[in-house]
This record gives sequence, C-alpha cells and structure tokens, in this order.
Amino acid sequence: MKKLINEIDNVVDEMLNGMTAAFPNYVKRLEGLEVLVRAGGTEGKVALVSGGGSGHEPAHGGFVGKGMLDAAVAGAVFTSPTPDQVYEAIKAADGGKGVLLIIKNYTGDVMNFEMAADMARDEDIEVDQVVVADDVAVENSTWTTGRRGIAGTIFVHKLAGACAEAGGSLAEVKAVAEKVIANVRSMGMAVDACTVPAAGKPSFDLEEDEIEIGIGIHGEPGVNREKMSTVNEISDKLLAKILAEGIYNEGDEVAVMVNGMGGTPLMELFIANKHVHEVLGEKGIKIYKTLVGNYMTSLDMEGFSITLLKVDDELKKYLDAPADTPAFVQV
Amino acid sequence: MKKLINEIDNVVDEMLNGMTAAFPNYVKRLEGLEVLVRAGGTEGKVALVSGGGSGHEPAHGGFVGKGMLDAAVAGAVFTSPTPDQVYEAIKAADGGKGVLLIIKNYTGDVMNFEMAADMARDEDIEVDQVVVADDVAVENSTWTTGRRGIAGTIFVHKLAGACAEAGGSLAEVKAVAEKVIANVRSMGMAVDACTVPAAGKPSFDLEEDEIEIGIGIHGEPGVNREKMSTVNEISDKLLAKILAEGIYNEGDEVAVMVNGMGGTPLMELFIANKHVHEVLGEKGIKIYKTLVGNYMTSLDMEGFSITLLKVDDELKKYLDAPADTPAFVQV
Repeated sequence: MKKLINEIDNVVDEMLNGMTAAFPNYVKRLEGLEVLVRAGGTEGKVALVSGGGSGHEPAHGGFVGKGMLDAAVAGAVFTSPTPDQVYEAIKAADGGKGVLLIIKNYTGDVMNFEMAADMARDEDIEVDQVVVADDVAVENSTWTTGRRGIAGTIFVHKLAGACAEAGGSLAEVKAVAEKVIANVRSMGMAVDACTVPAAGKPSFDLEEDEIEIGIGIHGEPGVNREKMSTVNEISDKLLAKILAEGIYNEGDEVAVMVNGMGGTPLMELFIANKHVHEVLGEKGIKIYKTLVGNYMTSLDMEGFSITLLKVDDELKKYLDAPADTPAFVQV
Repeated sequence: MKKLINEIDNVVDEMLNGMTAAFPNYVKRLEGLEVLVRAGGTEGKVALVSGGGSGHEPAHGGFVGKGMLDAAVAGAVFTSPTPDQVYEAIKAADGGKGVLLIIKNYTGDVMNFEMAADMARDEDIEVDQVVVADDVAVENSTWTTGRRGIAGTIFVHKLAGACAEAGGSLAEVKAVAEKVIANVRSMGMAVDACTVPAAGKPSFDLEEDEIEIGIGIHGEPGVNREKMSTVNEISDKLLAKILAEGIYNEGDEVAVMVNGMGGTPLMELFIANKHVHEVLGEKGIKIYKTLVGNYMTSLDMEGFSITLLKVDDELKKYLDAPADTPAFVQV
C-alpha cells in the first residue's frame, strides 16, 4: 500500500503542522502537543473540546473554529490521545465559562478524556462531558462497551458549538449535545478496508465481489460480509437498521449526512444521497438539510455512512447557525 | 473494481439528482438536461458557465452559487458535454449582461463549448470564453493541443466569479479570468489510477512501488513512471516543474491549492501541504491563502496536485470575496 507520507512515526505531527500552515487564521497548535486550538482563543463562552485517534480527517481539527470546536486533540492513528494531551487541550480552551468534552464512544477515548477531566477539575476548571454512540451497527465491539461513536459526532460539534457561540451556559450546551445524541444515528459500510500506515496492509481483506456492512471507523470489520450489490440496495440496508430505531417517523424532519470514508469518490456519495432522499420521502420523513462529503473518515477506506438527525425548531436553529472552520463553513 | 453505483449508464443522471436533492437552495437541474444552474437564477450580472466530463466532483456543479458559477454542464464520465447541453446552460444562465465560458483545455471541451457559444450568439446572447491550461506536466497530450486544464480552474471560477458578483462587465470578468490563467500553474501525480465505471478496470496499472508523475485528471498516465518515494520528494518534483515556469519568485505572494484526486486521505494532503509551505518559505515566496481538499478530482484516483496562483492586490480582493456554493463557502 502506497502512502503519501514521509516517516510513519511522524504522520500526525506533520499533518497537524500542515493544517496550521494551511489555516493560520483558524487554528494554532499548542507547542509540543498534538492539540489544535482556535487561533483567536476562547473567551467568554463555553469551550468545546473533542478529538480521538488520527485518521478521521477532517475530524476533528478541521472543525475547530467559530460555531463548532475550541480545541481538538489528535492521538496516534486510530489511537486515543493520552490524558495529558486532553488535559492540556482543556486548559488551553477554557475561556472561563467551562468546558464540554465531546467524546466518541470508544473505551480508550472515554477513559482518557475522563482522566483529563478529573485533572482539570483539580485545577478548578469546570468540565463536563457527553459521549456520542450513534453507530447502530453493533451493540458492543472489541473497542467499545456500547455503541461506537462515528459520523453523528459532527452534528454534536455543530449544534452544541452553535449553542456555545450563542452564549449558552455549560449546562445548556451540554443539554443541546445530549439532545443531538438522543436523536442521531448512523451506519456505515465499506467496499475496501483502510490501511494504517504502521500496519502497511489493509485492516481486513475483501474479495472483488464482497463488501462489509456495519464497519466502524478504525478499520475494524463490519457485522456482515456480503456480496456486492447496488448502492441503492446497500443504502436500503443501512437505512433499514437506522429507521428500526423508531426515532424517525412519518412527519418528522431530519438532517441527513452521507459521509465518505476517505477513499470514496464524491460522485458515489451523491448517488447514494439521491436514494436516501427517495426512501425517506416515501416514508414521509422530511429532509431539512443534507451534508454530503468527507466529514468523519477512516484514512483511505472506500465506503460511506448514512447519518440521520431528527430536528425540531431548537435543533434547526443551531443547525442553521453560521459556522466558520477549516472544514465546515456556513453563512 | 467495486463502485457504489446502480447502473453504469445512469451515474451522471443519478449524481446530478443527488446533488440537487442535497442542495436545493443552491442548485436546480434543467429538466431533461445534464445542467445545474443557480437555484435563485442569475439576474443583472455576468453569468459564468463551466463544465466538462463528469468524474471531477465537486467540479463543476459543486461550485455553482454565489460568487462562483451560474451554471455547470456535466458530460458523461471524462467526456465533453455536447454543444446542445452547453448551449442550454448558456441560455439558462444568461442574466442579460453576457456569459463567460470557463473551459478546461481539452480538445473536445473547447470544440463543444465554442459551438455552443456560436449557437447562443445566433440568439443575440453575448458570450465570451477563456481556456484554462494550467497543467505544466505536458505541452500536448492525446486529449489536448497545448497544456491541459486541471485544478487551477477552481481559482478561475472563484476569482472571476467574485468579479461578476461585484458587478463587473463581461470584459472585466474575462480580464480577471485571463489574469488568473496567466498566473496559475498546477501539476499532479498518482499512486493509483482511477477506474471509469464503464471500463471496470483501472485506467493504468502501477506496481506496488511505482507512482506516476504528471498525471492528468482523466485517467491518462503521467509523464514519468517512477519508484515510490516520500511525499516530500514527490512534492519537490511537482513544485520544481511549477517553479521552473518563472512566474513565482522571491517576494511574490501566492495562493496554494493542495488538491486530492478523489481517493487520497486528507491526512496525506495536509502532510504534502506542510512541505509545500516549507519549500516556498525557503524560496521567499509568501503564501497568502491555502486550500487543501478535494476540489478537482478524478473519480477514485489516489494522488494529489499542487497549484500555485500568484496574487496581487486585485486578485487577493477577488480571492477573499465571500462565496456560497455547495463545495466552497467563504465568509
């Protein structure tokens, strides 16, 4: 597997420097740390801190900026950041009104973010947290107790970020995040696995006519290995499992995200999106807003995930609020 | 090669419908045509029309919107749109102040856009055109007389679009486009070829330790097949050829685009960008703005291109102007 890198051990360091070089008006890197914070700092508002293993770009550093995150911590590829790094992110992001941690549900992430929160509380920083577990594919995984956190996390960044930007208190921002988490579900698939640079080979092997349904975002195999079919049939399967949650019903309004896993042509994501709209339309579920693109990736994995977020007037307001970050700008 | 599609013959049709479903506030499709136009129409300003073969998403439909294009015509995958389709796009986009065609330099595109322009002039629509030929890799190709038009086209959309949005006349908008074209150069590479759906196999084969330097965006092989090396070494080669143009010199200011070819992880694009910044910094070339992402892709090709645009105060003003399109939003 050919990777456009220099040294395997340096990929995260060089990537973060490449991001700050590209977007100096948005993000700066904390010296000696794998942490990106807002270039302009955070004052007078609740700060949002997220992160996790690297390899999910633009998540999470790409979402640091106005209306979304205040800091993002980058672990090694597919590896939780250490408590020390998260702690430094919390300290740097805190603007005096408290810090909300947005954690994707993986055992290592939860443990390390919680340890960091304890360290910060010892210094009298007000810290609270939410855990995103939007992936309906599995109830538990090798890496997770409970469901995994995947692309739905981006909606938590966006909506809780909008509440914080609007001056919400830590409790209010947390309540918005929890409301998003209660109303967001995702499921993904892959036609080809990703290759972690240090591993040098794909994390699982698929035959030329096979796909994996229910993949996560760390190269872990899915729940069903199936024969390749059309993207409509694949989308039907992902949607069926999401809709079986019982959250999205006739007359409801939803935001949709068709998320590429990193190696998927945008053309294919749009074709998938067409069918998602058709299926939801047939069910009388109204689509309020749609995102199509690479938001929460898994290196070079080829595949996509579908995310639905049920929205009411409050969530629509936060969804529509302006944002200005390297990877998500909304007027 | 597994494609997330339904019918090979329907990929462009379904993709366009997937785009309009996703972004109804931005784009609408002309009925029965492979043309996306601004949802709000074009009135009282010069209209910009671009397009080309499909497979380069988000180009060009993703750039239809405020501050960029007024219409985008989508041919079959890697195939020029027909004169009829371009003609309909011109008619639909014309807001009474004339239409500028932005054509990537491929023989078929130039011929078909020019025929369409003649058809529109017969109906007294004022039409002019520019041809983008930013690829320094080859002087001619199987598909082109003269240099190919690739990722630098996005800067033409952005800056000429800003001039049009600001009320520039057709001559003024064309002058800005020509100025961008004179000052923009690009070069690309691939670690793996793309697969056109109808072909079903990669457009060229590379060994596990081989790369192609100087690729185009239609699956055509590059100018040099080389051994895989580090992304720094690869970037050095692309930059050396771009800098040999003599346009970008010590003290100059440039905009940089590190463009993914569709299947390249964002992590790798950022690592490349870090080095591009270092090299230009050493040469005393100041970077005014940087774009990193998938702007002008080639289906699932894995690789990237580097684009430099020399900017003066006028071009900076148009570069910084707000834009609001599906694939490029700037506050």
